[in-house]
Amino acid sequence: MVYRDDVPEPVPGEGQVLVQVTACGVCGGDLHFATHSATMVDLAGRMVGAPSLTDGLDLSQDVFMGHEFTAEVISAGPRTEAPAPGTPVTSVPALMSARGMEPHLYSNTEPGGYAERMLLSAPLLLPVPNGLEPRLAALAEPMAVGLHAVTKADIAAGVGAIVIGCGPAGLAVVAELSAAGISPVIASDFSPARRKLGRLMGADEVVDPATDDIFDVWQRTGTGTPVVFEAVGVPGMLDSILQRTPMGTRVVVVGAAMEPDRITPYFGIAKEAEFRFVQAYTPDEFAETLRQIADGELDVAPLITAEVGLKDVPWAFEQLSEPEEHCKILVRPGS
Amino acid sequence: MVYRDDVPEPVPGEGQVLVQVTACGVCGGDLHFATHSATMVDLAGRMVGAPSLTDGLDLSQDVFMGHEFTAEVISAGPRTEAPAPGTPVTSVPALMSARGMEPHLYSNTEPGGYAERMLLSAPLLLPVPNGLEPRLAALAEPMAVGLHAVTKADIAAGVGAIVIGCGPAGLAVVAELSAAGISPVIASDFSPARRKLGRLMGADEVVDPATDDIFDVWQRTGTGTPVVFEAVGVPGMLDSILQRTPMGTRVVVVGAAMEPDRITPYFGIAKEAEFRFVQAYTPDEFAETLRQIADGELDVAPLITAEVGLKDVPWAFEQLSEPEEHCKILVRPGS
Repeated sequence: MVYRDDVPEPVPGEGQVLVQVTACGVCGGDLHFATHSATMVDLAGRMVGAPSLTDGLDLSQDVFMGHEFTAEVISAGPRTEAPAPGTPVTSVPALMSARGMEPHLYSNTEPGGYAERMLLSAPLLLPVPNGLEPRLAALAEPMAVGLHAVTKADIAAGVGAIVIGCGPAGLAVVAELSAAGISPVIASDFSPARRKLGRLMGADEVVDPATDDIFDVWQRTGTGTPVVFEAVGVPGMLDSILQRTPMGTRVVVVGAAMEPDRITPYFGIAKEAEFRFVQAYTPDEFAETLRQIADGELDVAPLITAEVGLKDVPWAFEQLSEPEEHCKILVRPGS
Repeated sequence: MVYRDDVPEPVPGEGQVLVQVTACGVCGGDLHFATHSATMVDLAGRMVGAPSLTDGLDLSQDVFMGHEFTAEVISAGPRTEAPAPGTPVTSVPALMSARGMEPHLYSNTEPGGYAERMLLSAPLLLPVPNGLEPRLAALAEPMAVGLHAVTKADIAAGVGAIVIGCGPAGLAVVAELSAAGISPVIASDFSPARRKLGRLMGADEVVDPATDDIFDVWQRTGTGTPVVFEAVGVPGMLDSILQRTPMGTRVVVVGAAMEPDRITPYFGIAKEAEFRFVQAYTPDEFAETLRQIADGELDVAPLITAEVGLKDVPWAFEQLSEPEEHCKILVRPGS
């Protein structure tokens, strides 16, 4: 991972807008990519029937990243309507083309949010409302992952939830469960700092897996069958959930494991359990979390544990591989 | 597996009825149990939060089996209302007790359907309607497995289905999909005889996995995202489905694998796929398949490929371990 100061200035084409990045969060998925990019490209190549985030990517070349960004408009491409220069904006990390909206997370050619300037698609721009600070608006993207998971979970009235893992994805799930009025929400993480954030995001109870089994804790609350969110993404979690969860549990798989995993179908069958694998969010969900933050319905400030300059992106990746101290590190290219 | 002629005559207690077994199908689950009983007991012992079919079972003792039965009433226990002697009846394989309705599939003490006579619970008895032959009424149980899987699949209007595996469970799924008007239904099996049964049960198309990929065949029909029923139950099937199925697929796991299985969560996440593990059926579903058969809505006769006496149960188990020739073998204790 290197800071390159020889990247050519991007030039907006038709339908595109050149923006100045004001903040960009470091995502756990980027950490995964930094470690497992060859595995991801291999898996994507073997998969049939779904678009891949790494299609066409050449790992022998530089890869631009950064997809949790906010920015200010600099200029629009030819024949392109865009907000006035200086307008604070954000966008789902995607580019419009003749083929529609394509995810833009890893690219050999287009700088992402870990850069001073980048290109965005004019039709996808969302003005940041209410004078919301860029540092908070940058959290709309990771919070949308939580909103999407909660929406996909389709939780019936009166049903509570377990969230395993209080990394940024798990915390986004906790916050959106809380915002949706789901109760109780019990979350777990080995890290005391992250358990504290779990409480701040709205968990009714937090559990240290080193000393307590979250399903035992759930049984003590006596509130029926929970929906379980797996937000750790390491092998063995899914089987451990199947083994210990009550009959009829729906498991929402948010954690993005790259490695193969071993499950015991017998447990799933005996319990008539369900797995819902989820990924990302819709543009509407992204717009909704931006609104929730701007309207003060979600207080995401505690999630931000550091703000650094572009040259410190490698430091941020290193810090986040040891999750005790940091949660969301923001890159502030202007700083 | 032995035929024992020294089993004491069962004596009906209060709430129980002594019946003469007229037919009992050999279930794939019984074959699994004969091969993997120690694994099942081990898995059940490690599982928390769900009842097990093998609780309290002592594998060092004889185990009675047989749960796809029809019978005729002989006599009722004390203070017990029951149909008149000679009435043809069937029942879900369960016994009532103070704890409710408990599955009765494997027992050290209570003979099942592989016996001349057995005990049933009076409140669970269903008279066999319409003078339906016992050999056909015995198919209500395995067909209920198919109805349950299709019900749990909750298939939206206009969505078709893929059924992988045309053993008795897969064929029951095909028949109930067809009865529910789901179209198209594409099924696969390595066995030509079972593919032929797939057609007879209502599959629009059948595929030989040795020469064709069912997902390629599905793509050629151009009918969107199917619901996929996994009815094979051997390791590797779930991952292969995740790898090849279209975006957003719901996979209903009917096949009862005992072995651990390896999946690639990445495939599930990239496709936002879903697993629904299902097991057995409700008493209402059992009653409904009995009605479907009695009313001529389901023609299950082609599924029966042999009828044998009690002493030939070991032969039946042996035949069914090589699935080409036989599908459903009925044990007829009177024959």
